[in-house]
Amino acid sequence: MNISDLNSLLKVAESAANAAGEVIRPYFRSSIAADIKSDDSPVTQADRESEKTIRTILQQATPDFGIIGEEYGKDQNNSDYQWVIDPIDGTRAFITGRPIFGVLIALLYKGQPVLGIIDQPIMRERWIGCKGSPSRFSSPFGGKIGTRLCPDLSYAEASCTSPEMMLQSAPHDGWKKLHHAVKRITWGGDCYAYGLLALGQIDVIVECDLKIWDWAALVPIIEGAGGCITDWQGNALTHKSEGLVLAVGDPNRHQDALNLLNNC
Amino acid sequence: MNISDLNSLLKVAESAANAAGEVIRPYFRSSIAADIKSDDSPVTQADRESEKTIRTILQQATPDFGIIGEEYGKDQNNSDYQWVIDPIDGTRAFITGRPIFGVLIALLYKGQPVLGIIDQPIMRERWIGCKGSPSRFSSPFGGKIGTRLCPDLSYAEASCTSPEMMLQSAPHDGWKKLHHAVKRITWGGDCYAYGLLALGQIDVIVECDLKIWDWAALVPIIEGAGGCITDWQGNALTHKSEGLVLAVGDPNRHQDALNLLNNC
Repeated sequence: MNISDLNSLLKVAESAANAAGEVIRPYFRSSIAADIKSDDSPVTQADRESEKTIRTILQQATPDFGIIGEEYGKDQNNSDYQWVIDPIDGTRAFITGRPIFGVLIALLYKGQPVLGIIDQPIMRERWIGCKGSPSRFSSPFGGKIGTRLCPDLSYAEASCTSPEMMLQSAPHDGWKKLHHAVKRITWGGDCYAYGLLALGQIDVIVECDLKIWDWAALVPIIEGAGGCITDWQGNALTHKSEGLVLAVGDPNRHQDALNLLNNC
Repeated sequence: MNISDLNSLLKVAESAANAAGEVIRPYFRSSIAADIKSDDSPVTQADRESEKTIRTILQQATPDFGIIGEEYGKDQNNSDYQWVIDPIDGTRAFITGRPIFGVLIALLYKGQPVLGIIDQPIMRERWIGCKGSPSRFSSPFGGKIGTRLCPDLSYAEASCTSPEMMLQSAPHDGWKKLHHAVKRITWGGDCYAYGLLALGQIDVIVECDLKIWDWAALVPIIEGAGGCITDWQGNALTHKSEGLVLAVGDPNRHQDALNLLNNC
């Protein structure tokens, strides 16, 4: 796979993100109902229609590629290429009218994320990451790609989607140590927080229970912005990862965070 | 005080909110530093400049009125009219690049909030409440004023700014009961969550440690949208309130929430 391939595949992914935005916008701040899935997370008609729309566009453009989506599962094959979709990441934010959810589209090549989009369709903000290239960001509201330095974790702005996530599923002691080490934690994040880390607004994100569609798009964006994203052992995220995700803006703080998480 | 007075005072408050937005926008997603105040909350140059700008406009237009602001304290007198300002409510959201903070401007008449503005200067969303009138909302992104019915708290979307706030300062048992009774809680709110409650997107908000500048602007907005906002005893919020705030979209659920909070 070379760069020109990746550019044409990015165009496909961007047109799918555009179409998902068209689907989602009319539902925003409407009286949409949320069902509860088996994992207790909410899902709406907007999630389902968004994923169907994205799948249709990807399948038409790249019929030989596999697709993994949050709502409609795997349509996988032996291709080296697999699209990975989260049609609305941050459904909680979406159903409460907060415009800080995102459409996530990623492409895996031999299991590694090589392309990722975070699209915020209400504010029309978009992050793009392509393996080997600097990430890009467009927004009517400002912000520049590039993670920031963090001289010590005691200066770190941290983020995490919800305390319930950490209390129910995280290895507690390590998480507590990191929580106490950082300057401040802001709750309520989802993909948008990773986007902000790529803009140098947040220094550390620690989460658990993430599925491949939650993290795949984030990897090229964060790496192409100068940051680092791994599991809690410091290993690259793969389909075998257990959903424990650590992202840092300053790679010099990666080992410090790992030490705390692993109670070293 | 009659309605025409209130309309001309609203114009003054709106021009102060406009000017605060001009001050704040250039700082958004810049590398602004946050200091820590004595109550451990962050404050930035943008908070301070925003408050100074608002104070100047209010003082020029209504030199006889008192002013209470989060950053520069009381400039109070014996007037029946007191402006109450929070130049950036949600500084945590502001310093991490999330456009869900707000400029709050309220007017008290004989201690009661009669006018309130929540202004989100990045997305240019604005809520306006005037005692005795339906609230108003303007946004490029949709949403309509009006709280929604909630047949039972088990259907309620709840919101609260942070778990630390509740763990450190709330009477625990009542809060835990309410937390368990609602369908779902979303963290990370500040004034923006109250705005969403006024749009029928959230059903219940429970918080503690709120100061008069945090809640004064919210009261006319929520009441003029059909909701209800009191302390945890069900009493109107006053300058003597202890910062425990309960807001419900459907006034029929107010007593249910009070019963849980008070462990009845």
